[in-house]
Amino acid sequence: MSGIEERLALLEERTRRLEDELEVTRLVLSYGPLADSGGADAVAALWEPGGVYDVDELLMNGRAEIAAMVRSDAHQGWIARGCAHVIGAPHVTVTGDDAVALCYSLMIVKDRSGDGFRVRRATANHWTLRRRPDGWRVVTRVNRVLDGRSESPELLAAGLPVTS
Amino acid sequence: MSGIEERLALLEERTRRLEDELEVTRLVLSYGPLADSGGADAVAALWEPGGVYDVDELLMNGRAEIAAMVRSDAHQGWIARGCAHVIGAPHVTVTGDDAVALCYSLMIVKDRSGDGFRVRRATANHWTLRRRPDGWRVVTRVNRVLDGRSESPELLAAGLPVTS
Amino acid sequence: MSGIEERLALLEERTRRLEDELEVTRLVLSYGPLADSGGADAVAALWEPGGVYDVDELLMNGRAEIAAMVRSDAHQGWIARGCAHVIGAPHVTVTGDDAVALCYSLMIVKDRSGDGFRVRRATANHWTLRRRPDGWRVVTRVNRVLDGRSESPELLAAGLPVTS
Repeated sequence: MSGIEERLALLEERTRRLEDELEVTRLVLSYGPLADSGGADAVAALWEPGGVYDVDELLMNGRAEIAAMVRSDAHQGWIARGCAHVIGAPHVTVTGDDAVALCYSLMIVKDRSGDGFRVRRATANHWTLRRRPDGWRVVTRVNRVLDGRSESPELLAAGLPVTS
Repeated sequence: MSGIEERLALLEERTRRLEDELEVTRLVLSYGPLADSGGADAVAALWEPGGVYDVDELLMNGRAEIAAMVRSDAHQGWIARGCAHVIGAPHVTVTGDDAVALCYSLMIVKDRSGDGFRVRRATANHWTLRRRPDGWRVVTRVNRVLDGRSESPELLAAGLPVTS
Repeated sequence: MSGIEERLALLEERTRRLEDELEVTRLVLSYGPLADSGGADAVAALWEPGGVYDVDELLMNGRAEIAAMVRSDAHQGWIARGCAHVIGAPHVTVTGDDAVALCYSLMIVKDRSGDGFRVRRATANHWTLRRRPDGWRVVTRVNRVLDGRSESPELLAAGLPVTS
């Protein structure tokens, strides 16, 4: 019987690990649709209460500041003129109750001078997340635009586990 | 033994749930490669026989109309001139035998006036899917271009489960 | 007891299959961050020692040639001027110890004549991978730009399992 107990316990652990990876993936992917539909409180609720969202030009501490960014005239203006915050498929590494997600994001906006769209920003994203009693939440998200500044490649390099 | 029976049954259910999420993800991601290689019948077979594909300018009812769109001169012309229907990583929510997938799609085409590509359309995608005896199939896919019309953000908001 | 043994064995097999699909996905998604941060040896280590990376204009045989591409002035120049190798969410098919992944990749670069970014290349990617004692590795990756050449749609068509 001990063989069965051990196999069950191992399966439960492996299944939990897979569920964690997919839950973190869903959380990261929900940012774009929530931001582009103006769901300020829902965007903020992706973070833990004291979570940090650090973008090149703006540092947001806690949910209230994140929600305020979504409600700002600048952000609402992008929605009104046509905007897609496309979050790329994240590379997720779960370690117990912590996780790191690494992805690109593209801010794609309606081109006012033509009939198509243009890529306004291509950005490196490094997320850290933590398991909480009510599910995974973002602890920090750091975004750096990939315009040649050295911080952005460094941020990409920091998000992947070392493999040999 | 009852403890083992319950743990096995729960693991079977959780594993099925994970398999469903990945199967729905694969189905959604297969649209682009099938459409861009002109596989009209294979594209249509992603939907159930009476499935609906509702794009801004075109409403397709059933597989025959979907296949006809892929075979159309307009679609074949895009393939011939260079085209990528990039389906973004989908956010998938499975509930029993039903699922909702939410993603962005980018229609990226060769730029005839330059040496690169341009983003012709950035679109919100809302998919509903159903489990059938032969696997998951699309029931409805609604696409709305993110050009500032209010329908598109509303479509994004409708595709995510409510979290607190 | 035989019922329990069979159910455990089946769960172990299904769980392994899910882990494989996610491991292959992570491997494919790690290419962009490693390439854009200049990790030449880490990029090369995604392939098995004799692995092949076949891009339109360049055929690389083995890890040394792949690492040399990352170290080249051309590639380092893209990083210095601002570049994102965005690997789209891969469609992964695992069959035992082999896997096929199909995705799009977008090479997005800082626009030197404006303040945004431009899509320099949109490319069909067909990966074959193999399980090795130390994890999954790439056997071949074939990239063809989607500029209207017939090879590119053919590459997309070849990467999906036949469904009815």
